Amino acid sequence: MKETLIFGHKNPDTDSILSSIVVADLEANLQNTNVKACSLGNPNKETQYALNYFNVQAPEVISDVSSDDTVILVDHNDFKQSADSIKDAKIYKVIDHHCISGFDTAYPLDFTVKPFGCTATILYSLYKTNNIEVNKTVAGLMLSAIISDTLLFNSPTCTPADKSTAEELAKIAGVDINTYGLDMLKAGTDLSSFSSEELINLDAKQSEINGKKVIVAQVNTVAIDDVLKNQQDIESEITKVIDNKGLDLFVFAITDIMACNSKAIVLGNCASSVEKAYNVKLENNVAFLEGVVSRKKQIIPVLGENL
Amino acid sequence: MKETLIFGHKNPDTDSILSSIVVADLEANLQNTNVKACSLGNPNKETQYALNYFNVQAPEVISDVSSDDTVILVDHNDFKQSADSIKDAKIYKVIDHHCISGFDTAYPLDFTVKPFGCTATILYSLYKTNNIEVNKTVAGLMLSAIISDTLLFNSPTCTPADKSTAEELAKIAGVDINTYGLDMLKAGTDLSSFSSEELINLDAKQSEINGKKVIVAQVNTVAIDDVLKNQQDIESEITKVIDNKGLDLFVFAITDIMACNSKAIVLGNCASSVEKAYNVKLENNVAFLEGVVSRKKQIIPVLGENL
Repeated sequence: MKETLIFGHKNPDTDSILSSIVVADLEANLQNTNVKACSLGNPNKETQYALNYFNVQAPEVISDVSSDDTVILVDHNDFKQSADSIKDAKIYKVIDHHCISGFDTAYPLDFTVKPFGCTATILYSLYKTNNIEVNKTVAGLMLSAIISDTLLFNSPTCTPADKSTAEELAKIAGVDINTYGLDMLKAGTDLSSFSSEELINLDAKQSEINGKKVIVAQVNTVAIDDVLKNQQDIESEITKVIDNKGLDLFVFAITDIMACNSKAIVLGNCASSVEKAYNVKLENNVAFLEGVVSRKKQIIPVLGENL
Repeated sequence: MKETLIFGHKNPDTDSILSSIVVADLEANLQNTNVKACSLGNPNKETQYALNYFNVQAPEVISDVSSDDTVILVDHNDFKQSADSIKDAKIYKVIDHHCISGFDTAYPLDFTVKPFGCTATILYSLYKTNNIEVNKTVAGLMLSAIISDTLLFNSPTCTPADKSTAEELAKIAGVDINTYGLDMLKAGTDLSSFSSEELINLDAKQSEINGKKVIVAQVNTVAIDDVLKNQQDIESEITKVIDNKGLDLFVFAITDIMACNSKAIVLGNCASSVEKAYNVKLENNVAFLEGVVSRKKQIIPVLGENL
């Protein structure tokens, strides 16, 4: 029998990749051993730092699924963010912490979504309720995912459950949360090797908001202005994407993970919605978004009210 | 602060009403006491039998929700089967065992769907994982919901978890499953007091299948031919609904819960899809559906492949 494939969203972030690996361990402990963690893209530098630290291999990258695949979706449920042929596959389970949107199957399935800051926080609760012991490596992976998704508890998406779970996991993993967390986050802010085209695709999520086609991309940095040095080149890449995909809006958020602010390059015929949403003026296509670090909590829903 | 409203789908069945009452108890045990079980319609005779047996009041019937309501959805997630203004309310939680379809919120929430035969089976697992004791009344309500949804374990929707849960609950409730179950199911088959118009609306679910507008209604009986005595009158009521709602298909399944078969009155411009789906000929608009008792498992998906 073919292995059940476990994967997170396209442009995988740390939670998508590490939680897929953790779910494979969890399923094996639930006597479902015929599973394989994989991913819809390569790990980014932050994720790779965590994989190296805990000495775990990156999962195999797959390009799509087919009708004879059974899958477990992690860290996403929107078909637009999943494998292109996800509608053909048999979805066995979903474990996620995002809004439910664009999900539709003709059969009932096991679907667990909780309003936590990270998928890994849900996973740890599943280990607990099933009385399964969490080993040091798995604890390290879940901890890394939580640090990533909550920006070391600085994101407004962070819930008390994320924080207390991370503290328990740090003990099992034997690391100091702050030291390890800052090192891991900083590893992800090294953007020097990326072309502008790669940069705007590193963590880009497309959605349909009030009938408008929108991409909100985000990169983490410790020096926003270094990224903006290439603004002209970045804008020309964004414009290509807008034209190719017929987008109404492209928001490229450059987030300073230490200062917990963002600057966003905003292009598209709905660019003024960002001015309205944050009561700011775009200057040279750039908006300063004070205190904004979370796409999920501080960008997507705010745009939703103003598009 | 306004109470959080807990309710199941329109045309509520036993699971929708009893599981709403149970979720109110569960939430109270989770320290969320500001909740109220309600329903989008009156209990049917089967549900009323269970309420009387365990001496529980029927929940208050509400007609709709508004933007200042916070709600918990039980036994459904499709907005089309929920309160008309469900999109305006804040959905706090969903506990369900159906396909996920037409659900969409701009915020993440607590969403638990399992592929069991009954919502109450999920609820019992939540009592267990939260170490909450189940009292005799609550056990009786959950047991009744499982017996109803699985037709006393005869429906193909019944899973091993439903059966084992029902057996545990029967012990706590202090009833014999078969004796109590048959009495309760039979109470629901007394259709004598209903007009044809009421009959086709008792448990009707509208869905969009491959772009076609379809209603599949179902009644349980122990004598199919008694119901068919009024076929002409029933057909004229169905035709009115088809015209009013612009339906492509209306399937009125009359299910013999003892013999575990159904006959269906089939009308609409897509009526032939039922012939194709079950390899039968409609005779005088009626199809015999051998072994068919479950709308969810044996009608909706089969139509989906043939519409």
